[in-house]
Amino acid sequence: MTDEQLPDSVPGFRFGGVAAGIKKDGALDLGAIVADEPAAAAAVLTRNRVRAAPVEIAQARVEGGRAQAILVNSGNANACTGKPGERATRGTTAAFATALGIGDELVLPASTGVIGALLPAEKIQSAIPRLVRSLAPTGWRDFARAIMTTDRGPKIAARTLTLGGKRTAHVLGIAKGAGMIHPNMATTLAFVVTDAAVPSAVLRRSLRAATDDTFNAITVDGETSTNDTIVALASGAAGGTPIRKLDRDARRFDDALREVLSDLAQMIVADGEGAMHVARIEVQGAANEAAARAAARRIATSLLVKTALHGRDPNWGRILSALGTAGIAFDPSRVEIRFDDVTVVKKGVTLGPTAEDRAREVMKRSRFTILVRLGPGRARAHYDTCDLGAEYVRINAGYRS
Amino acid sequence: MTDEQLPDSVPGFRFGGVAAGIKKDGALDLGAIVADEPAAAAAVLTRNRVRAAPVEIAQARVEGGRAQAILVNSGNANACTGKPGERATRGTTAAFATALGIGDELVLPASTGVIGALLPAEKIQSAIPRLVRSLAPTGWRDFARAIMTTDRGPKIAARTLTLGGKRTAHVLGIAKGAGMIHPNMATTLAFVVTDAAVPSAVLRRSLRAATDDTFNAITVDGETSTNDTIVALASGAAGGTPIRKLDRDARRFDDALREVLSDLAQMIVADGEGAMHVARIEVQGAANEAAARAAARRIATSLLVKTALHGRDPNWGRILSALGTAGIAFDPSRVEIRFDDVTVVKKGVTLGPTAEDRAREVMKRSRFTILVRLGPGRARAHYDTCDLGAEYVRINAGYRS
Repeated sequence: MTDEQLPDSVPGFRFGGVAAGIKKDGALDLGAIVADEPAAAAAVLTRNRVRAAPVEIAQARVEGGRAQAILVNSGNANACTGKPGERATRGTTAAFATALGIGDELVLPASTGVIGALLPAEKIQSAIPRLVRSLAPTGWRDFARAIMTTDRGPKIAARTLTLGGKRTAHVLGIAKGAGMIHPNMATTLAFVVTDAAVPSAVLRRSLRAATDDTFNAITVDGETSTNDTIVALASGAAGGTPIRKLDRDARRFDDALREVLSDLAQMIVADGEGAMHVARIEVQGAANEAAARAAARRIATSLLVKTALHGRDPNWGRILSALGTAGIAFDPSRVEIRFDDVTVVKKGVTLGPTAEDRAREVMKRSRFTILVRLGPGRARAHYDTCDLGAEYVRINAGYRS
Repeated sequence: MTDEQLPDSVPGFRFGGVAAGIKKDGALDLGAIVADEPAAAAAVLTRNRVRAAPVEIAQARVEGGRAQAILVNSGNANACTGKPGERATRGTTAAFATALGIGDELVLPASTGVIGALLPAEKIQSAIPRLVRSLAPTGWRDFARAIMTTDRGPKIAARTLTLGGKRTAHVLGIAKGAGMIHPNMATTLAFVVTDAAVPSAVLRRSLRAATDDTFNAITVDGETSTNDTIVALASGAAGGTPIRKLDRDARRFDDALREVLSDLAQMIVADGEGAMHVARIEVQGAANEAAARAAARRIATSLLVKTALHGRDPNWGRILSALGTAGIAFDPSRVEIRFDDVTVVKKGVTLGPTAEDRAREVMKRSRFTILVRLGPGRARAHYDTCDLGAEYVRINAGYRS
């Protein structure tokens, strides 16, 4: 996404990022988003039963549907740190709330980085005055850098939409996702702000739906982090009557939000040293959507499929075999497999070496779709996955120090 | 296992192996086990819905509880080959049955190797006269070599037991498992013969139970092959009255069978270039056995845990995080994690860098146990896993040719 497509600012929000000394290399590691007034808020949080302190606290605070600030640090996940970890997150968000002159309960925390180490609360508290001074409507680039861990670069996406036929509103999303290469946890964080007037109930529903089709349909290594967090804030500064569920503006907002999250999700799956391709696993012809999703997920997470992607080997046998362990009913002798426009398998058997050679050419593309048609059903689902190379292993086998 | 522990022969059985030209390098690739008379037979076959032709045919034939011969080839899995594949397996087993002068339905086929390529039936049929001539009571070493794919060596285990207080009987098991390095499918094949008088119903029950604790509790890469097969044959040549369910001899036989399968399973998980350690994931304190097994399996198959094993990093955060996605209920603040005798995590938090350094020393052992205690429950389960190194990726990303 080029800068031209990104807005200068999103009315009602300021952003900032500073170096608090959590990362050893002195890079930006503390970021904030602050709304001028309490904003409608919604969040999607990790389903991992082991949840970091900031996730627990953010969940409790977002339940009321309102928030005014987001405080994020990278370099330390504050996960598996027990009561001291909880105190550290409460302390830093309280200090930030005091500096902003708002209530603690309006600050949502998020953390990413090394797991099992206590959050260095003093470093963060010392940096808060500088963080507050850094806040600016145009500060989202610094924010995007401050939440990175081993990302190759910041991940930003935006859409502009017209509401009620006349008012312009923006949806700006910023994410981090270490993709294949994070040495501890592939934590995903994403923050979306909009100046559209979206009540929290509508925002919550819209965020859930958009997440299912985007962030919940990508896989890098099948791992779910203790810290995964997606937060959306709506300031309403664009004016107009609040968007209502199912009205025309709601559909426009849903589309814009889904597109922003989709862009960010694609950036995450494409990131990471060693990952050369993004493959969309598209399953069609399933009996129902749950079956389609289970099939797509199983293929997208198969280690043998992912290593075959790395080697640009159209190894349809591995795809078929992974499908056989997806826990769904299907007739192997009806399966069709295509690599973009090249059909390799029909009725469960190969079309031969010429088709496979052509599929091998397709796999030289940086993005391609593997279509798996199960049968005559009408349900479909997709999952985006990347190849798994030796670099993933090299980095993830490294010591944490 | 040294040769001294292996029997010269198992009364009632002959074994053989020849080179039929399926493997390009001229190595042994066609093996057989033949009983003097129809033997009691039981099998455990892959749960993958995509099943190779030999698996389908073996299943239909073993249902009657009797078999007299096993015909195995390596170098070609005859999977995803449709009707022609079925005809090829029927043809080769028929030719072998004719050469032995027995009925087709008494021959159980098994295949392992490249997927999606039709079994070269003519090569096998041409080699059958030589295969029959090679059969000998002491021929099990050739058989063990003939079923190998990328195994580093043959996998053989045996136990001797005393039945009815006086009769000696043997249990001999031979397996192949390409562990981490098979370039197509990590197919597992295992064949067990015994001269104990075990009726097929008892043999079936005993084999199922022993498989759950052994072959179903190892993981290399979380993949289930289209061809996984375990077959047991009992000749009864040791004499005596048939073993009855739950009697003292049945328990002795169960133990011997479980030990043989356990030895073979351990050999499989330890095999494979790049795999340096075998770690037993032992989960204790679970509410029930299903929860314990789910937890052990999730940890054992986590890519982040397996790469940490490779790097000898006692990364307990990855273990805890994997546990959090196992789909079971537990309280993270009660979890204890030990590496052999070194406790690293108590009440869900680290005991600090000294404990982790000691755990790092434990991880230099070729085998160690990671004990994860969930809480006050009484259920336990284990899973054996190996580390995942760059070599796995290198080999599995390679072209199939």
